[in-house]
Amino acid sequence: MMKTPLNISMMLERAELFFPKKQVVSRMKGGVVRHTYKEIGERTRRLSSVLKRLGVEVGDRVGTFAWNHHRHLEAYFAIPGIGAVLHTINIRLSPQHIAYIINHADDRVLLIDDDLLPAIEAVKDEIPNVRAFIIMTDKDELPDTTLSPVYHYEKLLADGDPTFPFLKDLDEYQPAGMCYTSATTGNPKGVVYTHRSTVLHAMVLGLADTQGLCERDVVMPVVPMFHVNAWGLPFAATWFGSTIVMPGPAFTPKVLAELIDSERVTITAGVPTIWLGLLQELEKGNYDVSSLTRVICGGSAAPKGIIRAFEEKYGIPFIHAYGMTETSPLVLVSRPKSYQDGLSYEEKLDIRAKQGLLAPGLEMKVIGQNGPIRWDGQEMGELCLRGPWIAAEYYNDERTKDSFRDGWLHTGDVVTVDEEGFVKIVDRTKDVIKSGGEWISSVDLENALMAHEAVFEAAVVAVPHPKWQERPIACVVLKEGKRVTKEELYDFLRPQFTKWWLPDDIVFLDEIPKTSVGKFLKRKLRDEMAARYADAAKE
Amino acid sequence: MMKTPLNISMMLERAELFFPKKQVVSRMKGGVVRHTYKEIGERTRRLSSVLKRLGVEVGDRVGTFAWNHHRHLEAYFAIPGIGAVLHTINIRLSPQHIAYIINHADDRVLLIDDDLLPAIEAVKDEIPNVRAFIIMTDKDELPDTTLSPVYHYEKLLADGDPTFPFLKDLDEYQPAGMCYTSATTGNPKGVVYTHRSTVLHAMVLGLADTQGLCERDVVMPVVPMFHVNAWGLPFAATWFGSTIVMPGPAFTPKVLAELIDSERVTITAGVPTIWLGLLQELEKGNYDVSSLTRVICGGSAAPKGIIRAFEEKYGIPFIHAYGMTETSPLVLVSRPKSYQDGLSYEEKLDIRAKQGLLAPGLEMKVIGQNGPIRWDGQEMGELCLRGPWIAAEYYNDERTKDSFRDGWLHTGDVVTVDEEGFVKIVDRTKDVIKSGGEWISSVDLENALMAHEAVFEAAVVAVPHPKWQERPIACVVLKEGKRVTKEELYDFLRPQFTKWWLPDDIVFLDEIPKTSVGKFLKRKLRDEMAARYADAAKE
Repeated sequence: MMKTPLNISMMLERAELFFPKKQVVSRMKGGVVRHTYKEIGERTRRLSSVLKRLGVEVGDRVGTFAWNHHRHLEAYFAIPGIGAVLHTINIRLSPQHIAYIINHADDRVLLIDDDLLPAIEAVKDEIPNVRAFIIMTDKDELPDTTLSPVYHYEKLLADGDPTFPFLKDLDEYQPAGMCYTSATTGNPKGVVYTHRSTVLHAMVLGLADTQGLCERDVVMPVVPMFHVNAWGLPFAATWFGSTIVMPGPAFTPKVLAELIDSERVTITAGVPTIWLGLLQELEKGNYDVSSLTRVICGGSAAPKGIIRAFEEKYGIPFIHAYGMTETSPLVLVSRPKSYQDGLSYEEKLDIRAKQGLLAPGLEMKVIGQNGPIRWDGQEMGELCLRGPWIAAEYYNDERTKDSFRDGWLHTGDVVTVDEEGFVKIVDRTKDVIKSGGEWISSVDLENALMAHEAVFEAAVVAVPHPKWQERPIACVVLKEGKRVTKEELYDFLRPQFTKWWLPDDIVFLDEIPKTSVGKFLKRKLRDEMAARYADAAKE
Repeated sequence: MMKTPLNISMMLERAELFFPKKQVVSRMKGGVVRHTYKEIGERTRRLSSVLKRLGVEVGDRVGTFAWNHHRHLEAYFAIPGIGAVLHTINIRLSPQHIAYIINHADDRVLLIDDDLLPAIEAVKDEIPNVRAFIIMTDKDELPDTTLSPVYHYEKLLADGDPTFPFLKDLDEYQPAGMCYTSATTGNPKGVVYTHRSTVLHAMVLGLADTQGLCERDVVMPVVPMFHVNAWGLPFAATWFGSTIVMPGPAFTPKVLAELIDSERVTITAGVPTIWLGLLQELEKGNYDVSSLTRVICGGSAAPKGIIRAFEEKYGIPFIHAYGMTETSPLVLVSRPKSYQDGLSYEEKLDIRAKQGLLAPGLEMKVIGQNGPIRWDGQEMGELCLRGPWIAAEYYNDERTKDSFRDGWLHTGDVVTVDEEGFVKIVDRTKDVIKSGGEWISSVDLENALMAHEAVFEAAVVAVPHPKWQERPIACVVLKEGKRVTKEELYDFLRPQFTKWWLPDDIVFLDEIPKTSVGKFLKRKLRDEMAARYADAAKE
């Protein structure tokens, strides 16, 4: 068999050859703009030629700082097309982290959306190795900026070569992309994607059992293109000749609902918050969303209520998936098996609210307190992954040793696996409570407590224990004006959990300490509770 | 990204882990037998352990001589699972060719169906390097045979290790399979498949735009497992956890219709002759074939009448595909594009009767008399292919240089490509008539002539011509009792073809010389006609 390498350029070339008339639709500030794949192909080749002229060499990193639109799609192919590395920078990072990752990746050129310029200007003195700033703007002239040297994307393209050939004889393990993932503490960690991993991952998105992406689809990636390559959708959609709908810089729920209606979107993908917002908008407006054949939800678990609302009110299948920056991202997709057809809707909903079955091509193992767990939907362990689109390391980062051991990615996610192999995320390894050789899910206890009508917030953390190693302590914030006693809460929990899962204490707090993005700061809470119960631990 | 190799074993392992209850159904002589993937997995591991015990080493070839059934499926995984090479021997070859390929591949062990024993016994003295003959039989005892040493498949398995681990750290370019393809002259030519090519090809079968194979499917491969791995279906179906229905040793149209009905088959694949036979059976019987969601047809072009009959009478989408032993085989699949939905059924049928669009992952070029052809559905050229599941050579065969040049497989198939990229096979390069810098399709002229009510058979061949290089001569055999003049045939052809396509002469023969399998022996006819028109060629 031929040893032809898997190469990202072949995906765009297939669209140019076989689907030149099909479109990439971008909702820009001035309205919707449309480009055919023929035009996208020529513009991408122009961009490749321009980047070469600006001195970008094989292996160099080129950063993007942009929303979801056609120009960003062009960068997705133009940069790997010359053997360089597409570094998609998360526009929501702090200035400190933005400067850190630009320097850590050693970006040579940055492509920046005009409305996002201030965030890069704010760190311009800290990123001395960037040689050129290319501004992506719909306007004819460059905006005022303190960056230098700056170029106008469209003017550069006008001088580019629309027939520029992509590099095809690259090693398939050549880096093609980079994405940084936030760490609980410290700087973001970089993950490098290769041509091979990107192509294989895109192919998996076309499998009927995962997302079944195909030519017939109108794909709207709502997940940002700076987040794990918009889950690989721009690559796969181009390869298969799907129509792409890019929601652009101002993707409010209203814009999304309008685009689904007017462009007849068949598949869209994003995080639960997006779908909650869309649901509210659909209630308000009079939209036709009957074109949608599935909504893909990842990033975090969607409450069953959202799944039910999409399906019962709008007849749109809602599909849970799981992945992370380190996994390209697709790992799990939750579709019941064909022989589960006969289950009731509620039973299927229970399955579909899990994260799902492992995608073809990957291997998993789940390691609990006592080695590999039983597949009984009860025993918990850490999900570990292996496969051709799973990262082997963090880029130049000594934290690699924490997550990559013995050839496996240790995800840090605590899961159960049911008898049918469906994986359910139940906690993070650092938050799970290790009690007497068994694990207790902090998330399960929190969800149960927060279901009480008097409870506003609940966080459950481990404190050291001389006999059981760790025991759970529940921290509860009550709703304004509501009252409940500790004993009442225990009575509420007792029927739901086995005895040794019940927290050793329930503490009422005025508030739970939180991170800047609103997540529970469990580390701080753990320290506080450990101090409070230090005497108990010594007993 | 991890450099985990693509490995065939991971396909079966996924079925064992996630689909242990799903079934492989085999129609054996004694009736239908059922095995779950859990059982298939254990039996496969037993076979792997037994083959190791018989001395099979990494890289050794193991031949199979068998119908489509569960034991053959076990061999599909057990042999590559120990790093050996699965050599599927075509049971329909002549004894001389069977001996040739067993020796050329250097098979160490043969797995043989009991009812096929005579064909191997007939050549036993010519295959001295085969160390063991394993007989696959439903009976408790071995049949009488002159082969030695012989083993009983099930008795060997009974002593095997059901937990035997597959080799996982193989290089993905390690040979995993072999299949020989008949040559027009001389011995069959061997094609070697690798773990990488087999896995990538299986994944492509799961793409929604090709065959969309998925867990929900009940797959019945009618194409033999000794023919290009039954088009890769056993690998893909196992990987995705589909139910497999194996039609076994006696797959008459009646058996196929019964299996579709009773097992609720959703997808089946085979050559046009099979579908013609099935159609006739469906007319006769009272079968429920409503479970079928698609019939895949390859091997040679299906007449529009067959496509129409399946779709209009039975509502079963009929999908044309194209490939060859050298291409694993999937290359082209004929599904109209979404924006062609508005065409009439007849217009879509015209598209669907072509061989189709190139599968993702491959590259094609079509080279005519004057270089790359225009995509106008008219200009003809030879289809050339490149990609990770396209052969790079024939195994130890100097004929490699005829078909593999400049990194491309030259298929020998002459095609046109229409404006939308749909490829249509119009001839073989050796049969096409090269006239004045243009090509004339012998097949098109033959089909036109055979559409005349008086014509039984027609073969069109090239004769040398001093000015035009080659010119077509038509050889026609009339139906019994029918008469037609040369001039009447010209009148019949004239409205259908441009002037220079018309044959220089039409010759009436009593019969067309044929090969042993009934194909036109065009080489012989060409020689005869060249002699007959030798004087004209000298003018």
